[in-house]
Amino acid sequence: MGDSHKSPKEAKDVSLEELKDRLAQFARVRGWEQYHSPRNLLLALVGEVGELSEIFQWKGEVERGLPNWTPDDKEHLEEELSDVLLYLVQLADVCGLDLGQAALAKILKNAQKYPALNPSTISTYK
Amino acid sequence: MGDSHKSPKEAKDVSLEELKDRLAQFARVRGWEQYHSPRNLLLALVGEVGELSEIFQWKGEVERGLPNWTPDDKEHLEEELSDVLLYLVQLADVCGLDLGQAALAKILKNAQKYPALNPSTISTYK
Amino acid sequence: MGDSHKSPKEAKDVSLEELKDRLAQFARVRGWEQYHSPRNLLLALVGEVGELSEIFQWKGEVERGLPNWTPDDKEHLEEELSDVLLYLVQLADVCGLDLGQAALAKILKNAQKYPALNPSTISTYK
Amino acid sequence: MGDSHKSPKEAKDVSLEELKDRLAQFARVRGWEQYHSPRNLLLALVGEVGELSEIFQWKGEVERGLPNWTPDDKEHLEEELSDVLLYLVQLADVCGLDLGQAALAKILKNAQKYPALNPSTISTYK
Repeated sequence: MGDSHKSPKEAKDVSLEELKDRLAQFARVRGWEQYHSPRNLLLALVGEVGELSEIFQWKGEVERGLPNWTPDDKEHLEEELSDVLLYLVQLADVCGLDLGQAALAKILKNAQKYPALNPSTISTYK
Repeated sequence: MGDSHKSPKEAKDVSLEELKDRLAQFARVRGWEQYHSPRNLLLALVGEVGELSEIFQWKGEVERGLPNWTPDDKEHLEEELSDVLLYLVQLADVCGLDLGQAALAKILKNAQKYPALNPSTISTYK
Repeated sequence: MGDSHKSPKEAKDVSLEELKDRLAQFARVRGWEQYHSPRNLLLALVGEVGELSEIFQWKGEVERGLPNWTPDDKEHLEEELSDVLLYLVQLADVCGLDLGQAALAKILKNAQKYPALNPSTISTYK
Repeated sequence: MGDSHKSPKEAKDVSLEELKDRLAQFARVRGWEQYHSPRNLLLALVGEVGELSEIFQWKGEVERGLPNWTPDDKEHLEEELSDVLLYLVQLADVCGLDLGQAALAKILKNAQKYPALNPSTISTYK
């Protein structure tokens, strides 16, 4: 992908715009645009959320960082998280909405709705 | 948002890494990290997928671009799409996974699984 | 099951209590009760809702009665609808709640919340 | 409902057939049948599964029997479980499928797929 000169840090910076463009191209060259109505994509998203949930369903509480998971299990989880993201990006796209800007705006809105603790309080949680 | 000097193109390029960092900071200064276990975040994600579905539930088939939706309805949809994204980003983060790289890898894997049509075939779908 | 003398009409009357008892027995004789915590069952339910959604995801709008579905597709749908129901019944059971009574109560509550149209109006919908 | 002579035990025996009939009547007298297409009902179901998940989302692991829940929280949970059930029953109905018989058939199929432990093993789980 011509990214061979990027540093590891840069390599991680995947944008929603890039995913949107790649997915639009992906669907176009496969003749799949005809199937990508908003509700079809929404149900596909729900399907992937189901597969994501199946990974966690019989595990009881799971620790942050997944300390006891095998590399294969982590890779499976990465794939299901990705599938949810890819349908979400496509759903926003066919609706004509800018998901990245919407997400930033929602974080700001949440920040106003839920004020941060004051610094001295925060330190007790560190 | 202080973005007034950015070009429209730059303004749209929100990365998953940026969202992850902002959300981690958001949770930290509110003392919310203690609640952000993988399964808690997963169920919160399912909750938001439910709210997203409620927007579409009584509408019958919806056209691409949402031609008859009011600005308020579109904004509501943007918020619910964002909520799903924000929990997905946080779920990947507490699992220690790189969602952006995982998504790129999944697109490549899908590309191998589903070969593109040949160009002459594609043209018939244009 | 000792139901050999029941008429076909009676045979259809499957109660939630019966399903609950059968499923509790099913789990007990397989040593599965240890896995049936409320959140495990909830995530299993979400997984099945995902499989149910996958059946409908690329179909566009679907007509009542599924006029163009094959018997195999209908049977697949029956299985996924059942899987959702079976986890729902078990979730209610491990929570110590009576799903059948709760459902009747919710119908009554909805009836008060959404008054019926008057008879002359209804007739126009018949 | 002419149930005045039933014992409390019988009163609990709510059948899927009864729920189906009540819900069909409920929709008919409100002029709602026109909205009850399969995919509309499916998305409504997903919406309710989201509300059900929200109840459990920040709780960490939850014990069987909900020992520390208030009566109000339990009632809220009963309502959300019911909402999922009511849309599931209606979805099966508009698809022309018999949910109760399908559920019994699925239990039998599962019983063949997952053989029970032998009795001596079971006793160790009692």
